[in-house]
Amino acid sequence: MHRVRFRDPNGDVRTGSWDAAENRITASAGPGGRLSVSDDSYTPAEVDVLAPTDPSKIVCVGLNYRGHAEEQDKEIPDRPLLFLKGPNTVASHNQTVELLPDKERIDYEAELGVVIDTQCRNVAEADAMDVVRGFTCVDDISNRDDQRAEQNWVRGKAFDDAAPMGPLLASPDEVPDDATIELRVNGERRQHSSREEFIFSIPELVAEITTYMTLEPGDVISTGTPAGVGPLADGDQVAIEIEGIGTLSHSVTIP
Amino acid sequence: MHRVRFRDPNGDVRTGSWDAAENRITASAGPGGRLSVSDDSYTPAEVDVLAPTDPSKIVCVGLNYRGHAEEQDKEIPDRPLLFLKGPNTVASHNQTVELLPDKERIDYEAELGVVIDTQCRNVAEADAMDVVRGFTCVDDISNRDDQRAEQNWVRGKAFDDAAPMGPLLASPDEVPDDATIELRVNGERRQHSSREEFIFSIPELVAEITTYMTLEPGDVISTGTPAGVGPLADGDQVAIEIEGIGTLSHSVTIP
Repeated sequence: MHRVRFRDPNGDVRTGSWDAAENRITASAGPGGRLSVSDDSYTPAEVDVLAPTDPSKIVCVGLNYRGHAEEQDKEIPDRPLLFLKGPNTVASHNQTVELLPDKERIDYEAELGVVIDTQCRNVAEADAMDVVRGFTCVDDISNRDDQRAEQNWVRGKAFDDAAPMGPLLASPDEVPDDATIELRVNGERRQHSSREEFIFSIPELVAEITTYMTLEPGDVISTGTPAGVGPLADGDQVAIEIEGIGTLSHSVTIP
Repeated sequence: MHRVRFRDPNGDVRTGSWDAAENRITASAGPGGRLSVSDDSYTPAEVDVLAPTDPSKIVCVGLNYRGHAEEQDKEIPDRPLLFLKGPNTVASHNQTVELLPDKERIDYEAELGVVIDTQCRNVAEADAMDVVRGFTCVDDISNRDDQRAEQNWVRGKAFDDAAPMGPLLASPDEVPDDATIELRVNGERRQHSSREEFIFSIPELVAEITTYMTLEPGDVISTGTPAGVGPLADGDQVAIEIEGIGTLSHSVTIP
């Protein structure tokens, strides 16, 4: 089932299911998780779709597709290259993301996001899928001007709204092992790959990350981007489509 | 006034003031911030002192004292070297911190932590102190084995409990401009410096960080460590004393 977080027409944050075929969002509980007194349902246009999770941290993976490592002229790492984005980076489906001013190059990066379901530490690869709630689409927006110049990619990766995500949370069994991941800018395809191309699998990532840190329910692991990254311009419309999940759309503006 | 967060003998999380001369903690509100029906007060030994804040992120500064840059054989940076620690790194006064197993060198780093009071972005240096709630002591525990090997210091700096902090939050006017910062391991002095030695001032740090990201109430900027960093061993007792704030104590264990 595809799950969604949304703000209803009364302004309350709720969760529910999204039936794409019927174009209906049905609330699974009332505001604040209270029992719903009616089967409230809406068209997607009637609500504000929120990011599908409210993470305490986003653990991102660099260079997890061979093609992207090659285009960045980087060696294939022998263990996952990790970096962090804070909660300030979360942006939503349909949001207009305001990029940083005065930068030469800020790039899109289509990624599959893994949303954690259970507080966990030291998870074995064999148990990793037990702690996963589902998958969503993430744009790991990257400010190359600063990323190139700094040791840790804080200005480069952790600026406000640098991680649009959503719109849906798909359960892992809805997303095929060879799911395609595609990114379009203004309707034109720029990235196209498959999660079969991952260098490190999702269980390997969960095991490696939880060797060092506790993951909390709602935390996100963003699994890296395929080849084809490129710059964003003022007014661009970005669409990230992952087979079995759906399409995350957002636009950008440069102040 | 020195403020403290603590768990009272009933298990409720509360805030209050700590009078060091009287050795008393007086609750400023009841559990959950509700109006207190009595002037509850305790000795520090009667309560569990918690970290003085519950940050959504900790923005750390590397190489902010000339002496430490020199001992690490690094150039003085022309802008602050930033890195992130997530909420999983917060540990408390008097906690026994379990370090990562099988590492050759995990170091202490005494730092002054700046706790943010107001949600803010694009703060001018001249206004920076208006968004600051107060100062506390932080140990920026650093796993050098992984830090040396990775681009972003995630395994190196963002592992669980890698940021003990506390015990108190002092208002900025209680901490002199030339406040000494000292770290002792098992009673022996290892670091001793003054915030006069900062390369980048607190207003410069607030301005630079908020050029890129929103800081939330309770977020922490950890301002870098002076010369004298060194390794921790199983059973070590660490004390970080900053003039005008007080002394953070924690021990470490290696599993």
